[in-house]
Parts: sequence; C-alpha cells; structure tokens
Amino acid sequence: MDIFVPFDAVDPKRRLAPVLDSAERGAFAEAMLVDVLETLEAAGATPRVLSTAPMDLDWAVVVDERPLTKATNALLRMNEPPLGIVMADLPLVTPSTIDRLLEQEADLVLVPGIGGGTNAIVVNTPDFVVDFHGCSIEDHRAYATSNGLAVSEVDSYQLSLDVDEPNDLVEVLLHSDGAANRWLRAHGFAVVEDDHGRVVVKRTPRD
Amino acid sequence: MDIFVPFDAVDPKRRLAPVLDSAERGAFAEAMLVDVLETLEAAGATPRVLSTAPMDLDWAVVVDERPLTKATNALLRMNEPPLGIVMADLPLVTPSTIDRLLEQEADLVLVPGIGGGTNAIVVNTPDFVVDFHGCSIEDHRAYATSNGLAVSEVDSYQLSLDVDEPNDLVEVLLHSDGAANRWLRAHGFAVVEDDHGRVVVKRTPRD
Repeated sequence: MDIFVPFDAVDPKRRLAPVLDSAERGAFAEAMLVDVLETLEAAGATPRVLSTAPMDLDWAVVVDERPLTKATNALLRMNEPPLGIVMADLPLVTPSTIDRLLEQEADLVLVPGIGGGTNAIVVNTPDFVVDFHGCSIEDHRAYATSNGLAVSEVDSYQLSLDVDEPNDLVEVLLHSDGAANRWLRAHGFAVVEDDHGRVVVKRTPRD
Repeated sequence: MDIFVPFDAVDPKRRLAPVLDSAERGAFAEAMLVDVLETLEAAGATPRVLSTAPMDLDWAVVVDERPLTKATNALLRMNEPPLGIVMADLPLVTPSTIDRLLEQEADLVLVPGIGGGTNAIVVNTPDFVVDFHGCSIEDHRAYATSNGLAVSEVDSYQLSLDVDEPNDLVEVLLHSDGAANRWLRAHGFAVVEDDHGRVVVKRTPRD
C-alpha cells in the first residue's frame, strides 16, 4: 500500500524548542522520519514523504507547500484508495504494529494521537477528506458516521505516541532503538529521575 | 487468570489536585477502577482489588496497607503463576486489548506506562519480583534479562495511557465510554481547544 508521511521540512517540532535549537530540531525530526519510513518499508508498504520543501532522502518525496490538511486532501483526490497517511513523529513504531494497521478491514482505519490528534489513517473508500485541525480524531469519527463509513481503530501506543514535547523524549529513549533514539543519545540525552521520582530527560552538554 | 488491580484507597490521584478536590479524586479514581474491573471480567479474567484500605465493591478486595511494591511481591509469593497485575487508572481499556494481554506466551508479559512506568504485568514464572519505583519498565526488563526470562511486550495505547494529570482527562473524554467518562461529564468536564489550537479539558461549574 502507498503510505504518505507528511513532514514539515521548514520549521519542524517547535514545541521541542526548550531542549533543542532550530538546527537540532530539524535533524531530530528527520531522524524520526527515517525511523517511520524504514519501519513502513520493513512492513511491506511503499512509503513516500509529503514534504513542505524538497528533501534529499532514499525515499520518494512529494513537495507541497500548503498546510497539512490541504496537501493531504489533494493527495487523496489524486490517488485511488487504498491509501495510508502516517505521521512522521512516531519513532516508536515497529513493523508488527504496521501489520496490525494494514490488516484492518474497514472503509476507514483511524489511530488517535495523544491530545485529540489523528496519527495514522488508512483510507479504503473514495471521497474521504481529512481535517487535521483541532480535535481531529473526533472530526474524522464524525465524518465517518455522517457518511455511513465502517471505521476500525487500532489500539497502539507506538502509533498514538507522537513526539511533540520535551517529556515525550523519555519514550523515545526507553522504547525505541532507531535513528531518533541514537540521535538523542549522541547529543547527550538520557533518562533520569527527578526529585519527585518522576522519569524525565536530562541533557549533558558535550564538548 | 487471577488479575490483581492495586488501588490507593486513602489518597488517590494526587496529581489531579489542580482540577479535582480530595473527595472528587476518590470518586473518580473508583470510577476508573470499576471500568478496569468490568473490562477484565468481560475478557474472562478474575479480577481482585489489592487495596490499601477496605472497600465496598462487587469484586473481591485484598487489603494490604504496605506500599505497592511490597504488597504486590507478597501476592506473587502467595499465589501460583500465572498471575496478572493491571493498574487501576486505565479507563480506556477494552476486552479485546485484555485478550491481547492474556494471549501472550512468555515468562513475563509487560506493558509500559507513559513516563517509564509499568501498567500491566502477566507473570507466568515463579520467583518474579516487581519494583514499581522510578523507571520500573527498565527495571523489569533488566530483571528478565538477568534471570533469562522470555519477555513479551504488548503495544497498546489503552494500557499505556494511565490517567495521572489533568491533561490525561482529555483521553478519557475522547476514547472511553465507561464509568470514568460518565463521571467526568456529570461533573462538568468537556474537551475544548485552547488559544493555540490544542485540545484541553475545561470544567463548567454546576449549580
């Protein structure tokens, strides 16, 4: 199945600014993207990047400068179903979880992201349109109900955990062994316990 | 399978204090507990509560005032495997996910919680000991490696999402239809978008 992976190549992962500067955010975001692309390929899918700017990658890149919702809906109009959309900031994902995503039989397969988002969609029906603004998982469920579509949701921590904020780096350090994990370790990040016994990331400056 | 659900009956869910007073935290925590117990039972397991104080519930309650790690290890010594431990603050969980948890074939089945915790364990081997302090998922993995135990981990958002902080209530409102969801709605909670387009909970005071 063709799976598009949207990527903000201009100013990704702004909410990581408290712990990563702009160039670092770009490099870390690309490491997560590579993890997702490699995992999709390992699961037998055909991943392509939907990027806001040209990129030099080992995978096909479709450039569309428009916001995510518009660019994705253009893809849905131009391509026959089935078609997948998987977010680029899911570095925990493994091939067996992608297998579970792709084996669902429904008009629409949805995976929520933490905080009301939608982290993965498989579209097996024509005329579906996405809307990634606000509480998108509710909007996608409502669209399916209004249009009589059969929906299946996949229960996966790996797919629901999108990396947006500094605390999310804990999950990458604990539950992934891919490029994003290696990037964090190479840049001095490790998990530690804070004074309240909570697990947080700490960065040790390198020379 | 016997599954114990640890519960702090004295002062549960302290990190929800910004949005719930002490009596409300107790009632909401018990609603989540009931969701977990009903789901375990629906999946064919035999749930029992491991509580820090006596409780009046439709399920068996074992009272042990000691901290979670000590009380759980006492249970593991007193009961033959297989034995399950599932946290009480997982109101998203559904019977099909519990089926996935129970069908694993390994000496030890682990489900991480967000932030380094361990939200569910199935012990199929004698002599396992838990340690819920700090980054417990790493400690449980290390114990298994040191003792030559085969480990299986279950990839489940429903099991990994433990409700600890106010933002976690978003997930209960969006992805559950059980007692905890009903309790929140009856007490004025709803999801809204904040000024940055993020989905948060808002409480409307009731008369």
